Amino acid sequence: MLTKILTQGPIPRVEIARRTGLSQAAVTKAVAPLIETGFVTDAPAGDDGQLGIGRPVSPLTVVASSASVIGVKVTPTSLIGVTTDLTAGILNVRHDALDSTDPEAVIDRLADHVKALISALKTGTAMAGPLVGIGIAVSGDVDATHGVVRDSPLMGWRGVPVAELLGKRVRVPILVSNDVRALTVAEHWFGAGVNADSFAVVTIGSGIGCGLYINGEVVSGAYGVSGELGHLPLAPGELVCTCGRRGCVETVASSDAILARTREQTGRPGLDLAGAVELAHDGNLQAREAFDRAGEVIGAALAAMVNLVGPELVMIAGEGVAEYDLYEERMRRAFAEHAFGAAGDCRLTLRSHTFDDWARGAAATVIRSYVRGEPPLQR
Amino acid sequence: MLTKILTQGPIPRVEIARRTGLSQAAVTKAVAPLIETGFVTDAPAGDDGQLGIGRPVSPLTVVASSASVIGVKVTPTSLIGVTTDLTAGILNVRHDALDSTDPEAVIDRLADHVKALISALKTGTAMAGPLVGIGIAVSGDVDATHGVVRDSPLMGWRGVPVAELLGKRVRVPILVSNDVRALTVAEHWFGAGVNADSFAVVTIGSGIGCGLYINGEVVSGAYGVSGELGHLPLAPGELVCTCGRRGCVETVASSDAILARTREQTGRPGLDLAGAVELAHDGNLQAREAFDRAGEVIGAALAAMVNLVGPELVMIAGEGVAEYDLYEERMRRAFAEHAFGAAGDCRLTLRSHTFDDWARGAAATVIRSYVRGEPPLQR
Repeated sequence: MLTKILTQGPIPRVEIARRTGLSQAAVTKAVAPLIETGFVTDAPAGDDGQLGIGRPVSPLTVVASSASVIGVKVTPTSLIGVTTDLTAGILNVRHDALDSTDPEAVIDRLADHVKALISALKTGTAMAGPLVGIGIAVSGDVDATHGVVRDSPLMGWRGVPVAELLGKRVRVPILVSNDVRALTVAEHWFGAGVNADSFAVVTIGSGIGCGLYINGEVVSGAYGVSGELGHLPLAPGELVCTCGRRGCVETVASSDAILARTREQTGRPGLDLAGAVELAHDGNLQAREAFDRAGEVIGAALAAMVNLVGPELVMIAGEGVAEYDLYEERMRRAFAEHAFGAAGDCRLTLRSHTFDDWARGAAATVIRSYVRGEPPLQR
Repeated sequence: MLTKILTQGPIPRVEIARRTGLSQAAVTKAVAPLIETGFVTDAPAGDDGQLGIGRPVSPLTVVASSASVIGVKVTPTSLIGVTTDLTAGILNVRHDALDSTDPEAVIDRLADHVKALISALKTGTAMAGPLVGIGIAVSGDVDATHGVVRDSPLMGWRGVPVAELLGKRVRVPILVSNDVRALTVAEHWFGAGVNADSFAVVTIGSGIGCGLYINGEVVSGAYGVSGELGHLPLAPGELVCTCGRRGCVETVASSDAILARTREQTGRPGLDLAGAVELAHDGNLQAREAFDRAGEVIGAALAAMVNLVGPELVMIAGEGVAEYDLYEERMRRAFAEHAFGAAGDCRLTLRSHTFDDWARGAAATVIRSYVRGEPPLQR
């Protein structure tokens, strides 16, 4: 009920009844305790807010300030954290650099980072509700149930019990998620996915990730893994991925792979990514070829995903979208070549997420669990 | 409600209440008309069937004979049809050969086939309920909403309005589906998928298909396409598929591809599939290599699918499972090599479906629509 109000509000009771198939009386009854505890409010009805005599149809809205959450995106070089209200509206932002990816060191910094965000919440001018949970987003195979990062090639982590380690320093419920899945939750609840029956978020950058929303829920995978678009075996088999497997999409399409290829082809080992992008923009053929190869494999990967799950919409995101012009054409061509039948009708759209959006995604996972009353974030 | 009773019955009212979150009174009220119209019955309660005084908790069961349906699988060489009761129990089976895949000719034969099945229903000794619909299963891109086969490379069909054409000859509601998706519906409602939270059915044979059950529903694709595992671009790019695309899994792994490869490598153009299988079993290296290549690509395709959607269980099915021993090892090795992290924990199991099971799948799609009260099969 709260979920409907949160994602579709302001919404009249009669509309909730229609969408849930419940009677209006049942909706009114279910909503009453939410209003009583302050999570939901009736916005003042206008002149047309009356349906017949004495039947108010005041739309229901979630009270944003009734709770606050923290979301942190962990990258190999930095921690990006936000505090938000119950509608994922950002209250505070904090960026802290990391000088090591050693798990112990990162957890230390993460604890300080979170404590600083908690202080910011307490001292901020915005009216912040009680802090109900902390979401941590990490790339890779994350066991969300136990709060363990099982395998994150990007971080170089294996079996790091983030929730347990952080939980010793900060006494607030902690939810650890795959970062792309967290971003997908945010898109579904608060973003471009609100009105889509199904969609995919594909992130391009230092890793290639994918979040899927199908049949009314973000796909989590029976064993906690899903959306590993970067590890589909679509690249040449002689290339070895950071994950140790052969032929993964990331061996050609990650920003590191593009940079390595450009360095190799141009014979300029000191080049950085910005330099490679500049070379490609200047029309350097070797640099362009590296981006072409990436576009080709990303397009094939998109087609593979679309052929399998057939989403309505694909949002292309991640830091790599900054260089979208360098691979878009090849990507779209490869996609069109390999998309099967009507699956190719799927719209490919660009979404420019900032790192703060990723942190907001981590916050969104907490809001979702809290609103649904899932442990350990029961309302 | 009827869905729960059908897939999980015999089931007590109190258990339905628990699983749906409805009150027991609401369940009793919802079930009453189903009992009245004869779809559902209270099985006689045993001595322990009483909960307190005067409160019967007789489990509810669907009355199998309250309706009958027809399911037909259309292949390029034959029509395989079944009649079933409301629980997908097979009443009659009928096989008719096709000598042409010309749409008009096939529809003619299909109309005769269906009429023969209707006669069998009427004259059979089994108590058959009223015929509520006909399911037609065809491989390829099927627009189930409009009953149109949009693109079936295997049949050589494009834009064939099966429901409309057949509907002119047979005045019974018709539901046209992708064949693998129909099989997946049958596995979910009546088969090995009943207790799985998510699963995939992968069919290997003249085509390579895949049905997915995720987040409480068979994945249909926003544009009607999903599960096209046979058209993931995982094979060498120089190979052209029957669908016209390059590098599709089927260019290496379909039974036609395996046969073509064996013929080419052994220099025996007159070989048939049975001959190729025999050669491989006899240890002929060229024939074995053709199956190895197929196993390799199928394994990579399974890994790609599992990395993306992370099902609990994969059932490997299709006529190609008869030669499973010839490619299983390579398939499992390639799967293990490319499955990412815990996604590889997914169980791969073998399901030997007969062609009658495919026809039963078509029947299951009708039962599903009927039980849910979807048009044009409203209860």
